[in-house]
Amino acid sequence: MIEIDRAVKARESQAADLFEKLHVATHDGVGITRPSYGEGEQFAHTLVGEYASSIDLEVDCDAAGNTFMVLPGADRKVPPVIVGSHLDSVAQGGNFDGAAGVISGLVAVSAFQDAGVVPARDIRVMAIRAEEGEWFGVSYIGSRSALGTLPQDALDRASRVDTGLTLAEHMVQAGCDPDAIRAGRASLPPNGLHACIEVHIEQGPVLDEASIPVGLVTGIRGNSRLPNARCIGEYSHCGGVPRTHRQDAVVSVSELVKRIDDIWTECEAVDQDFAFTVGKLFTDSSQHAMSKIAGAVEFTLDMRSLDGEFLKEMESRVARLAEEIGHRRGVEFELGKFLRVEPGVLEPRVLEELREGVDALGIRALELGSGASHDSAAFATAGVPTAMLFIRNANGSHNPHESMELSDFTEATRVLAWWLAHRL
Amino acid sequence: MIEIDRAVKARESQAADLFEKLHVATHDGVGITRPSYGEGEQFAHTLVGEYASSIDLEVDCDAAGNTFMVLPGADRKVPPVIVGSHLDSVAQGGNFDGAAGVISGLVAVSAFQDAGVVPARDIRVMAIRAEEGEWFGVSYIGSRSALGTLPQDALDRASRVDTGLTLAEHMVQAGCDPDAIRAGRASLPPNGLHACIEVHIEQGPVLDEASIPVGLVTGIRGNSRLPNARCIGEYSHCGGVPRTHRQDAVVSVSELVKRIDDIWTECEAVDQDFAFTVGKLFTDSSQHAMSKIAGAVEFTLDMRSLDGEFLKEMESRVARLAEEIGHRRGVEFELGKFLRVEPGVLEPRVLEELREGVDALGIRALELGSGASHDSAAFATAGVPTAMLFIRNANGSHNPHESMELSDFTEATRVLAWWLAHRL
Repeated sequence: MIEIDRAVKARESQAADLFEKLHVATHDGVGITRPSYGEGEQFAHTLVGEYASSIDLEVDCDAAGNTFMVLPGADRKVPPVIVGSHLDSVAQGGNFDGAAGVISGLVAVSAFQDAGVVPARDIRVMAIRAEEGEWFGVSYIGSRSALGTLPQDALDRASRVDTGLTLAEHMVQAGCDPDAIRAGRASLPPNGLHACIEVHIEQGPVLDEASIPVGLVTGIRGNSRLPNARCIGEYSHCGGVPRTHRQDAVVSVSELVKRIDDIWTECEAVDQDFAFTVGKLFTDSSQHAMSKIAGAVEFTLDMRSLDGEFLKEMESRVARLAEEIGHRRGVEFELGKFLRVEPGVLEPRVLEELREGVDALGIRALELGSGASHDSAAFATAGVPTAMLFIRNANGSHNPHESMELSDFTEATRVLAWWLAHRL
Repeated sequence: MIEIDRAVKARESQAADLFEKLHVATHDGVGITRPSYGEGEQFAHTLVGEYASSIDLEVDCDAAGNTFMVLPGADRKVPPVIVGSHLDSVAQGGNFDGAAGVISGLVAVSAFQDAGVVPARDIRVMAIRAEEGEWFGVSYIGSRSALGTLPQDALDRASRVDTGLTLAEHMVQAGCDPDAIRAGRASLPPNGLHACIEVHIEQGPVLDEASIPVGLVTGIRGNSRLPNARCIGEYSHCGGVPRTHRQDAVVSVSELVKRIDDIWTECEAVDQDFAFTVGKLFTDSSQHAMSKIAGAVEFTLDMRSLDGEFLKEMESRVARLAEEIGHRRGVEFELGKFLRVEPGVLEPRVLEELREGVDALGIRALELGSGASHDSAAFATAGVPTAMLFIRNANGSHNPHESMELSDFTEATRVLAWWLAHRL
């Protein structure tokens, strides 16, 4: 199968061309913006779909608008293997978060074609919709729709942060069929899948700092999120009100943030995996003023851990903290409901096979947990044997400076193709 | 002089009529909005100016657009006494903050007219522009322009928060003459003033809770402010970055807020007068997301104390805290320059005379410090013998629910008129 590995390397310029086309079409002047069920995401699906057709893959879309590009296997009756990732991005993000996995899958199957090798079973390259939670406040919309595990109420309850339209409305606009999802029709029934391997940029500095191009992922953090938390106090003059009468939403939320940060410090001392982020925090621009006690603050909370039980415990602790602070400071926290995604437990057998691959190819790889969430977590949670490969990435992700070397992309794709060629 | 006191009471419905006209014209649907050098403020100046003309007061405007309405005294060569307050309001504020003092002055001089009494010296009722710091981030623009104490650079450096136009540009739009202010021409040279008495709603709950209608103010807190502070971190994915690499602007500012709040707790333990408010605090809506570490936070800081030295000390402490937190958390605080207004030291002699007034009239009054800033502080700082009378006020101020009973307004105005009649 040395021809497949050689073919992967030869396809590097093809990958570069696809990345460039994505960049040109979805750069917003600052960074890359491909909103879930929005224009940039649609462009990306059309681009990869047309490329897949041009190389004679079978292309189909499911009810959620996920695009599947299939290289037929020798036995078409056995469960297919899934490779790929998502095509949406955060606002002003980078070009590789998600897209690298889809293009890696396309390069791998192209390499099979170039080498004239028919895989043992169908390889379905997936281009998933709506992975980024920031648009609808819901994680893994596309992959969970495909797997039949999306919570029913998300379709009509979740609305996109920039447009206000519901998920179902956006799906209809994009030519999808939310009713089929409501009816529970899964395009990827989990028990009909052989395995899922997602290639993705690391989104952190670990590989970059270790000078290692490829990561073998050992687990994916779950998360628990508050997309629309609020703290309600009372607007009042900043100087005239005695401290006992202040109902200051800013000080109250600041204390909550500081105390969750203190818990993180405790976690580190006992090696408990945890991270939290308050990415959005704002007073009301129509009412706030330098000389007014803030009567309202809106904020988000994102907590992550490899330990699902600990995430549940943190939900209770945050709720108790908010109640205690609210009581003491005369404000009311309206946290809303925690949206939890369980940690993704990856398949040890596939991980071991990927280890064999990097050894066989002589590629340097590091084993690490994934702090970020990924579609893979949805596959793993649904019971599909799942693995992930990370590509080294500089400057973090979810920002315009996200950066990936094409040679690192090729190294990860070689590992993927090796596994598809040797362990299918 | 019993006739003057009776005439004040008889003018209550006239005051009600002026308040009502102000309310109707400057209610924005939620609260009262009279921006400094904006439409609502202009309406208020026109309204009181026309009313003053209708009762034969001498009306003039100065270069800053302050309106003066003068009841001529028996001796026009001796320094006049100043009464009144400002006419602008915060956004979505209340109808009485500022306006009550102007109308109180007009009622007092009307009562002199009604009683057929000529005061010993000119009584100048002032309607001041631009007292509220939130519009330009500068305090006491109108009164300091009149007194010749406005910092020169404020005219071109300060810009209005909603329009982005500079103070000088807004003055020109409103028909004022910023060049005259630049040239240092004071319309109220401090050494040419006999005294200044400002009537104002309390803006706090002290009188309301004590069930006392009138307050005799013992001092006015100074303030030190940061109108445009920022914390710069780095946007990054919330799950993929190890804690040591996070440059989280939200957690950093939250810690700063929490630690200033801790200092306040220490102050209370040793009876050190202090208050602080972070009225505006926001991540960047074009870039923030639930799943992104916040790379930037903008915020304001307002610190107040009756102790000017302590305010100076707090400026250093906040700067040191920001540096320490920034160093530890990998962020940079760009605080900008502290804008300080010294505490207003009121004139003991006038306060004593006001005490005599409330006793003579049998009005219940409470002595209290002013937590809020007032134009009076600018007069006191400029060396003018200054006093303040507070009117009881429910629901705080700088919010739409600010509330004042007309009978309380009349009680305070009676004290003012008594002083003008007996101690001029």
